[in-house]
Amino acid sequence: MQIQNFKQVVDEYKVIFFDAFGVIKNYMGLVPGIEKTFEYLEENNKPYYIVTNDASRSPVQLAESFHRMGLKAIRYDHIISSGMLAKEYLDLKVHHGIVAYLGTANSAHYIETSGLHTLPVSMVDESNIDQVNALVLLDDEGFDWFKDLNKSINILRRRNIPTIVANTDTAYPLNINDVSIAIGGIATMMENIVGKKFIRFGKPDSQMFMFAYDLVREQMPIGKKDILMVGDTLHTDILGGNKFGFDTVLVFTGNTLAEDAETRITSSGIVPTYICDTAVIS
Amino acid sequence: MQIQNFKQVVDEYKVIFFDAFGVIKNYMGLVPGIEKTFEYLEENNKPYYIVTNDASRSPVQLAESFHRMGLKAIRYDHIISSGMLAKEYLDLKVHHGIVAYLGTANSAHYIETSGLHTLPVSMVDESNIDQVNALVLLDDEGFDWFKDLNKSINILRRRNIPTIVANTDTAYPLNINDVSIAIGGIATMMENIVGKKFIRFGKPDSQMFMFAYDLVREQMPIGKKDILMVGDTLHTDILGGNKFGFDTVLVFTGNTLAEDAETRITSSGIVPTYICDTAVIS
Amino acid sequence: MQIQNFKQVVDEYKVIFFDAFGVIKNYMGLVPGIEKTFEYLEENNKPYYIVTNDASRSPVQLAESFHRMGLKAIRYDHIISSGMLAKEYLDLKVHHGIVAYLGTANSAHYIETSGLHTLPVSMVDESNIDQVNALVLLDDEGFDWFKDLNKSINILRRRNIPTIVANTDTAYPLNINDVSIAIGGIATMMENIVGKKFIRFGKPDSQMFMFAYDLVREQMPIGKKDILMVGDTLHTDILGGNKFGFDTVLVFTGNTLAEDAETRITSSGIVPTYICDTAVIS
Amino acid sequence: MQIQNFKQVVDEYKVIFFDAFGVIKNYMGLVPGIEKTFEYLEENNKPYYIVTNDASRSPVQLAESFHRMGLKAIRYDHIISSGMLAKEYLDLKVHHGIVAYLGTANSAHYIETSGLHTLPVSMVDESNIDQVNALVLLDDEGFDWFKDLNKSINILRRRNIPTIVANTDTAYPLNINDVSIAIGGIATMMENIVGKKFIRFGKPDSQMFMFAYDLVREQMPIGKKDILMVGDTLHTDILGGNKFGFDTVLVFTGNTLAEDAETRITSSGIVPTYICDTAVIS
Repeated sequence: MQIQNFKQVVDEYKVIFFDAFGVIKNYMGLVPGIEKTFEYLEENNKPYYIVTNDASRSPVQLAESFHRMGLKAIRYDHIISSGMLAKEYLDLKVHHGIVAYLGTANSAHYIETSGLHTLPVSMVDESNIDQVNALVLLDDEGFDWFKDLNKSINILRRRNIPTIVANTDTAYPLNINDVSIAIGGIATMMENIVGKKFIRFGKPDSQMFMFAYDLVREQMPIGKKDILMVGDTLHTDILGGNKFGFDTVLVFTGNTLAEDAETRITSSGIVPTYICDTAVIS
Repeated sequence: MQIQNFKQVVDEYKVIFFDAFGVIKNYMGLVPGIEKTFEYLEENNKPYYIVTNDASRSPVQLAESFHRMGLKAIRYDHIISSGMLAKEYLDLKVHHGIVAYLGTANSAHYIETSGLHTLPVSMVDESNIDQVNALVLLDDEGFDWFKDLNKSINILRRRNIPTIVANTDTAYPLNINDVSIAIGGIATMMENIVGKKFIRFGKPDSQMFMFAYDLVREQMPIGKKDILMVGDTLHTDILGGNKFGFDTVLVFTGNTLAEDAETRITSSGIVPTYICDTAVIS
Repeated sequence: MQIQNFKQVVDEYKVIFFDAFGVIKNYMGLVPGIEKTFEYLEENNKPYYIVTNDASRSPVQLAESFHRMGLKAIRYDHIISSGMLAKEYLDLKVHHGIVAYLGTANSAHYIETSGLHTLPVSMVDESNIDQVNALVLLDDEGFDWFKDLNKSINILRRRNIPTIVANTDTAYPLNINDVSIAIGGIATMMENIVGKKFIRFGKPDSQMFMFAYDLVREQMPIGKKDILMVGDTLHTDILGGNKFGFDTVLVFTGNTLAEDAETRITSSGIVPTYICDTAVIS
Repeated sequence: MQIQNFKQVVDEYKVIFFDAFGVIKNYMGLVPGIEKTFEYLEENNKPYYIVTNDASRSPVQLAESFHRMGLKAIRYDHIISSGMLAKEYLDLKVHHGIVAYLGTANSAHYIETSGLHTLPVSMVDESNIDQVNALVLLDDEGFDWFKDLNKSINILRRRNIPTIVANTDTAYPLNINDVSIAIGGIATMMENIVGKKFIRFGKPDSQMFMFAYDLVREQMPIGKKDILMVGDTLHTDILGGNKFGFDTVLVFTGNTLAEDAETRITSSGIVPTYICDTAVIS
């Protein structure tokens, strides 16, 4: 396992895609020094995109949170979230009625679209259940797990409607020791119980990368060979990036620790093009 | 699909095993007339056993609930529950310390055993986590899903201890329309997140049938051919009974409706020896 | 379940995507009358694309087979196969050495690319195994299952290389009664045994639809709303089309029979936008 | 991770159960010195049983193979194989007609039972398919994989009959580098394709342990606490033994290497009661 210098790797590509959590920030805040990476990209005219499985907030809110942490360079229109794909799906495929959701009001605000009414699962009842035309799983917070997960199951038994999962992760780190169950983990339990096929957006699925790739190509003529995907998680960032045809780099500031990397790469068969300690260019 | 008369089927066997929910009772109470079946068995000296995936109460409490409903014939020592297997496991394999649990105080009371201290997951903290030597999943009620499911995940990341699931069902019927997520469904989600192998008790697992079969054999010389298993669910009662070597009968008073039975039998490949409308002998 | 007229559905869209097997042809040959559909599309200047999980032949060979059957209208450059995605992956991500494959020589011929040497798994040995940089699963024919599946497993235990599966189907129909195990079914068995993550191309994966969508957009300004996906299989054509944002139509000339459609749609939760008996415009 | 002396562990128990492959023998032949273990057991009047997932031969043939290797102590009536459970199932549950099988003639010879006719899958045809009342998967050798796996799938689509899998392993070691796909791995692929539930016998399933436990109890009054299960594989020997209520010991002469043991125990959550280098008592 050869560790390479991130700056030298970046120099080989025209556009850089970053995962957010575990690469730019983690549960302690910004990865120290990461602002220098974005300065370097700007100086060298290398566009970047953040490709994140975070559907709890809109790109504008995600950008603001980076700004509050001190990373001013991140522009909202350079952030691609799995929530954007959920929103696009609703725009294209659900034309009227109610979209019931599990998540915070914030996460739901973002998917609102003309002609559709968003409603928390807790407020679905006999008077409106016949108008529910989609269920969207956005976030693990903002609802009563016992009441609303059971209610969601029974809505899906009554209504043959699409269920959209806007985050494929099963858990996320809370601090150095602990994790929290993510909505993607809950979604799999619900899918098994109702026996129906949910529609999932988020890495490693190609649709995330396609969305970002389309945005880049609108601005410059470019091929998949010119793009580098930077991530901390083999099963999402690296598997998805590889499959889409990008070169990939694994960093050690998040889910994958330096001491476990070789074992995990061998046992999973998911091989990044490069391995770097960090995405910080110092 | 040939429907047979339950009394004629019963007459061919020496001992009858019954599932509880969906055969003797359902969400509306006792299956009307079921008390006549137990009168008939008594008159004809045919021992019966109730083999149930219900770990929420002790056999004594389960028997009392039948008595309150009006079915006086059911004796507690003829009830085999998956909770009994959880209790046997703890007796044999966990010799000291704390057994943390998810479920009601009632369900936990039953698994108490000398030398072990049972504690709800909500009361595990830094002061006692190092003494937690097993986690037992008993019931879907009696705890805060959000707090305690997340806490359970993190206990299992800190302690390499056995996790016992005392009910393999993923959901159970609440009323004619609605179901409720069962602890077995939650267990699968937790197992996937922590990546560890849980120990499950309950039909279709052979251990349930073996426990009952051992009890019968203590009382009379008998073979598997002499026992009939009566159930409403193909994937638990019928699959498990068939695999153990019992003849099986599917009834339509619970999970499997008469109109769906043929499709479900064909698509699952789980074929009962007999099909009857009900376990009521009228 | 309302059955609609295919011509009226088609009239609402600018571009039509078709699955091949079960829509245009089946095990008996061309679907009778299907040539009229392509005449109608031509007359009305509606471009079409064939989007198929068939990686056993190149688009040129697939087009020729349509021509031999009597459907002259199908142009090779309107056929998108999962084999094309496998080829693109190798072009982008594997730069030298040997690509070992399971499949016929025909299927392998198509994925040949400059700088890479394709070799059937049967010809991998101690002298060349260290140069094997990818394994591609193309077809269920053209190799000895016992010898070459076992050999493939052991290659993957020795070499930490990407495994590409160019067909996600698990089985395909041979005649009215019988099916044949497809390479996608074999791939899952191998993946479980070696414990590694394979890279799969083919519907319902978005990458198939993106490839076709990119081709269309090179020729005309168009959005996802303007495209109709026609298929016979809920889990591939309809699920994948829906997820990508296309409207979808289910037809009954292949995997889904008219009498089963409603049950399957309800139990899977995969709901086509329209249902038509056939894609024939008469 | 504390390594203990096998002799001292054995001294704590009255009866010892052994896995065969990886404990008593491996691909190189007998584990050197293992005959001393059986001498010690005999001297100390400790009964032993071999509990093996090998359905390719009868207990008599398995015992003879130990004798040929030089281990004369192993008696055939102390060997419990998953093939015995398959045979018991057929005796109890299939009363007439043909049992089709995948495996060698040797493996099928053993499951022959009065009134049933065993027939290799290759010999099932239109003239006899209607009499086929069970399919048994015994061994990965003795048939043409391509022809007979496809044929088996189509038999199961035509006949709604039980499928019995007499070996749950997915692969087995051939030599220090290579493995071979086992019939249990093939069974999972077939089960997924036909969508039916197969009946599996073999560790970690409790039925294996129950069969052996019943044999022991016929000879001496004994409880689960008095029995030690010795195995080399966490997911079969140790998980199954633990669940049944036995104390367990992991040895390093087979599937689990000393250097991997701690990682595997932690990541799987399957914790043996003891860990020893070997089952040899020197």
